[in-house]
Amino acid sequence: MATLGAPSKKHKVTVVGSGNWGSTIAKIVAENTKAHPDVFEEDVQMWVYEEEVTIPKDSKNFDASADEPQKLTTIINKYHENVKYLPNILLPKNIIANPSVVDAVKDSTILVFNLPHQFIGRISKQLEGQILPFARGISCIKGVNVTSSEISLFSEWIGEGLGIYCGALSGANIANEIAAEKWSETTIAYDPPMIDSRAATPQGGSPSTSQINLTITPADDEHKDARGRVSKAKLKAVPSDYAPLDHAIFKMLFHRPYFHVRMVDDVAGVSLGGALKNIVALAAGFVDGRGWGDNAKAAVMRVGLLEMVKFGKEFFGHSVHAGTFTEESCGVADLITSCSGGRNFRCAKMAVERGVGVEEVEKTELNGQKLQGTSTAKEVNSFLKTRGKVDEYPLFKAVLDILEGRNSVDDIPDLVAKADD
Amino acid sequence: MATLGAPSKKHKVTVVGSGNWGSTIAKIVAENTKAHPDVFEEDVQMWVYEEEVTIPKDSKNFDASADEPQKLTTIINKYHENVKYLPNILLPKNIIANPSVVDAVKDSTILVFNLPHQFIGRISKQLEGQILPFARGISCIKGVNVTSSEISLFSEWIGEGLGIYCGALSGANIANEIAAEKWSETTIAYDPPMIDSRAATPQGGSPSTSQINLTITPADDEHKDARGRVSKAKLKAVPSDYAPLDHAIFKMLFHRPYFHVRMVDDVAGVSLGGALKNIVALAAGFVDGRGWGDNAKAAVMRVGLLEMVKFGKEFFGHSVHAGTFTEESCGVADLITSCSGGRNFRCAKMAVERGVGVEEVEKTELNGQKLQGTSTAKEVNSFLKTRGKVDEYPLFKAVLDILEGRNSVDDIPDLVAKADD
Repeated sequence: MATLGAPSKKHKVTVVGSGNWGSTIAKIVAENTKAHPDVFEEDVQMWVYEEEVTIPKDSKNFDASADEPQKLTTIINKYHENVKYLPNILLPKNIIANPSVVDAVKDSTILVFNLPHQFIGRISKQLEGQILPFARGISCIKGVNVTSSEISLFSEWIGEGLGIYCGALSGANIANEIAAEKWSETTIAYDPPMIDSRAATPQGGSPSTSQINLTITPADDEHKDARGRVSKAKLKAVPSDYAPLDHAIFKMLFHRPYFHVRMVDDVAGVSLGGALKNIVALAAGFVDGRGWGDNAKAAVMRVGLLEMVKFGKEFFGHSVHAGTFTEESCGVADLITSCSGGRNFRCAKMAVERGVGVEEVEKTELNGQKLQGTSTAKEVNSFLKTRGKVDEYPLFKAVLDILEGRNSVDDIPDLVAKADD
Repeated sequence: MATLGAPSKKHKVTVVGSGNWGSTIAKIVAENTKAHPDVFEEDVQMWVYEEEVTIPKDSKNFDASADEPQKLTTIINKYHENVKYLPNILLPKNIIANPSVVDAVKDSTILVFNLPHQFIGRISKQLEGQILPFARGISCIKGVNVTSSEISLFSEWIGEGLGIYCGALSGANIANEIAAEKWSETTIAYDPPMIDSRAATPQGGSPSTSQINLTITPADDEHKDARGRVSKAKLKAVPSDYAPLDHAIFKMLFHRPYFHVRMVDDVAGVSLGGALKNIVALAAGFVDGRGWGDNAKAAVMRVGLLEMVKFGKEFFGHSVHAGTFTEESCGVADLITSCSGGRNFRCAKMAVERGVGVEEVEKTELNGQKLQGTSTAKEVNSFLKTRGKVDEYPLFKAVLDILEGRNSVDDIPDLVAKADD
């Protein structure tokens, strides 16, 4: 029996993306929509970039009768396994793989973006005008976009492209561990501007969907950072026949016994953590490769963590909290994970041990694929240089200078010591 | 040429203790007294608990003519190596090993305590009335003393025993790595109460040593924590013919190119970090032994770090800063080091992998010696229980409950999840 005033409509969820991490997040979300049928529609749409795939012979779902290439969506919907990107993990049956992104997002109130950042532009264009105007997004895409002139958050990019508010999810999240339901934590930042719904609410009644079309109120806009993050968007309020899209509901959607969620407001801090940690992981690899032991590795991580905090506060103002970096999964925990066995750490360590450049290791170990840390180090230093601030981030600078041969690992202690004086 | 008003007296430094860590700290300090002869007397006294030692055959200093047991002080002063506790490290020649602690501290203005905490009581008694009344101490003894009724800092214990102010040094400091001059960082907390010297200062002149005998001014005392940390001490001012004993001078005494020092005020936070991290390291070992991977290990470290902050703030009031734990070497960096290869971590991991209790591992791997983490877990939980706060520290509680068989490692995620609700 419905309680008086209880939401009459259920939230529909779409996961845009189906790689290793996208499929893992879809699994989590689908488990939770099933667990909370009063709030969410059980079926979760997952957009899959269609391709022809043959089920591998070592798959649990290997099917001799289907030894021919099949559509990936067909395989997922029939066998409930993403055999290509998340093999050997049974997906919930309420994940519906959909090759059409436009169809997948139709009528969804919650859009979870989990695809390589290179696709954001194209997907946003395809989705323009195709989504519910009052939908909300969560970006699970790690990192930020840095050029020498500006830094933009992927969540902002998505939000502005679609005219919706988009938060961010990031943490110490190695997809395969989570897919295997090994315990981990994550951080979700969600801080939409308050919308003044009073003006549009008919006296004594709830606003209907069509009536609500409000922009951010100026008063609240003043409380946002100076970068105009959301002020341009003509944000639409979520109709009151849905449960409000607040911290509680996002925790309900993402929190699992094996995947613990902490909700915060600081979208910029959460996004920056996932990018800047890669520079620090390179430094940790350098130091470890040099054989300096655990003290030195912990030191470089600590120094790096504080440069991350400083960077966030300097360029994203009061919306960024030190605690996002020093206390949350998206900060210190993600940094620890990356400096334990992450790719940036391992390749930097290998480079020092072999006495070659990181570029050489990229060639021999990654088939010439580039590490995220090397490009982020280049971009962040170029951004800092434009602002005359490069010397205030001695570890970030040292990493680039080591990558480009102007400094050696042995210089790190002296270079970072300056910051304390 | 002496500048007008420049200090005419030099600080004399004594290191009380000469184990692995004590000898390493003496090496650092002696390098710095030599580097700053205008401020410090070059010779550094090091108290050595005298014993008969034979120089090992694999020592650089092996001397066939001295194949008989010799006094450890004789060996250190002749060969400049502590062959027993810090073998193969050349000590500076200006370290003077002294078997008499009373003689070693004579006329010293700076006393560095670096000995097993079990000796604090006895040594304090021996030193009563034997030290300069205006000396200052730095305790390098890790941890705190916890009983079910109270927590005391070793630095307080020393300070109260000797009637002097004593700060604390702690960090991600594996002694052998530092002795080998591999880069590391440390944190020194030093925050003596302000002494109102105006009343005793003769008009127009500097106070002489004998004139100064002042207690803490009430105004300042109010700014100290409620635990009466220094208020009982009849603290003596450092005479003005010495350079003032402030943050700058301690940084000068301890900072080396391979040993970076950050000075803070928070003595309690620095001391607590070195104790509580051992509980967290056990938890990290449990999780890693369970095969849950890097996400889970980072999660348990993050949760532990926040319980450390909460504990400090709850029981040591406003003198404790979150940043001491989340930003300094004595906090997050020491935690990282301990959870990488520390004894508590390794033994806890081994216990889970072998399916036995930690106590069993203590027996087989440590000859029955006890891990610090197990006793700290017991003491801290008993302290929390007395205060009805044990449920507010679910990770600390989980560690004890796992050690004592009331919970299993698999319960950790559920147990700590409660803290976020």
